[in-house]
Amino acid sequence: MVRCLTVAYRGTRYAGWQRQPNAVTVQQRLEEALETLRAERTRVVGAGRTDAGVHARGQVVHVVDAPRASGSSEADLPDKAYVHGTNRHLPSDIRVVAASRMPPGFHARKSARSKLYAYRVFPVEVLSPLDGLFAVRVDPRVRAEPMREALSALPGRHDFTAFALAGGAHTEPCRTILRAQLEAGSRGSLVFGFEGDGFLRGMVRALVGTLLEVGLGKRTPREFAELLEGAARSQAGPTAPPEGLVLERVRYD
Amino acid sequence: MVRCLTVAYRGTRYAGWQRQPNAVTVQQRLEEALETLRAERTRVVGAGRTDAGVHARGQVVHVVDAPRASGSSEADLPDKAYVHGTNRHLPSDIRVVAASRMPPGFHARKSARSKLYAYRVFPVEVLSPLDGLFAVRVDPRVRAEPMREALSALPGRHDFTAFALAGGAHTEPCRTILRAQLEAGSRGSLVFGFEGDGFLRGMVRALVGTLLEVGLGKRTPREFAELLEGAARSQAGPTAPPEGLVLERVRYD
Repeated sequence: MVRCLTVAYRGTRYAGWQRQPNAVTVQQRLEEALETLRAERTRVVGAGRTDAGVHARGQVVHVVDAPRASGSSEADLPDKAYVHGTNRHLPSDIRVVAASRMPPGFHARKSARSKLYAYRVFPVEVLSPLDGLFAVRVDPRVRAEPMREALSALPGRHDFTAFALAGGAHTEPCRTILRAQLEAGSRGSLVFGFEGDGFLRGMVRALVGTLLEVGLGKRTPREFAELLEGAARSQAGPTAPPEGLVLERVRYD
Repeated sequence: MVRCLTVAYRGTRYAGWQRQPNAVTVQQRLEEALETLRAERTRVVGAGRTDAGVHARGQVVHVVDAPRASGSSEADLPDKAYVHGTNRHLPSDIRVVAASRMPPGFHARKSARSKLYAYRVFPVEVLSPLDGLFAVRVDPRVRAEPMREALSALPGRHDFTAFALAGGAHTEPCRTILRAQLEAGSRGSLVFGFEGDGFLRGMVRALVGTLLEVGLGKRTPREFAELLEGAARSQAGPTAPPEGLVLERVRYD
């Protein structure tokens, strides 16, 4: 069986999910906590490589088991121990919220059917500090209707080169979007929701940055749709800041 | 005219609203920012003296004007300058969200008709770090119905000695509660709402701590109601932690 954990974190203090040589990441902190709990070197694989400052409510990871004698007892720590035991060794901005066991061969990223990201904006003059850790302020003149029209072009398979992090060498820039929507959130916020089989690095934030230009009349929904067939990165809008983005959920079959 | 500001803040890093000799408070930071903006010593009076760690979405303050020659131009900084100018000198966890002018004699605390506080709890095994800055985790077995029954005893004038901060010398322990409710919030949270003409120090958190005992069957709604007529502090429940509490709004006639 493969040990699987659901992890939530505030990305504010971290250089993203993935381990890096010279910066503190969420993966590193989680692996360190698991190593203390299991008393052995532990590596995990996350479903989504969230960027620096991006949050997660439902990141999913599996524990990469070192080859070991069968029947080793560490593999059988109960779910509750994985949740509460790991949390005792984690900083307060990272929490294991659930633990489960998956069939052999389960891989947090490769087995994922889809990921859901949410991006929250407040069209206000001054953003409240109670909202500002997980959302960004946008020009109050932004209009939801043209953004919704632009979003309707997203479902389906597209070449997202225009929305990939500039400089990134992506061998395969096509991704399938299952759902793209904009909903009214609490306290006057607007929440973009994207579900897809995968996302290029920086893709959700570049989509949001470009959609906000549509909402402000700087480009039309039709011009947005034309970017979805392999346009250059320079033709799309700016990358929206990380603090508005949350990896909400990873779906498996 | 009296200059009036609406202020929002995360209380996490602060020793409460009110100025103290040896700790950083929200009032101090706000006064410092206003002093930089107005280039003169500035004092403010807040409607509610929130405790250490308590947040505000709608704290209201008025600026205490030093005696000065009439027609002095500083008093006439436009509303926008008071909002954006002050914010330039404030840390990111404090924001002036609105500015206005009130008639002479207006006093942020004394003129207030009522204050609204909200306290958010999550009845879950593990609290998500995305919720934990502004809410607290409670035993998942807590039941809303008995708490709602207990809350129904609150509207009206009562002696809240049982819910005042232990050791505090309150000359007048009676306050009038206009509204007390418990509503389902987002993501499975429960939100207590209290509106009253005033609150003793620590009163909302002591009410919540005691109500949660009702929700867990440790005391009955009737026993809760009996505490409202001047019982001793030791008869009520514990003081709930500050991070769940938000001063939402101050109402004026």
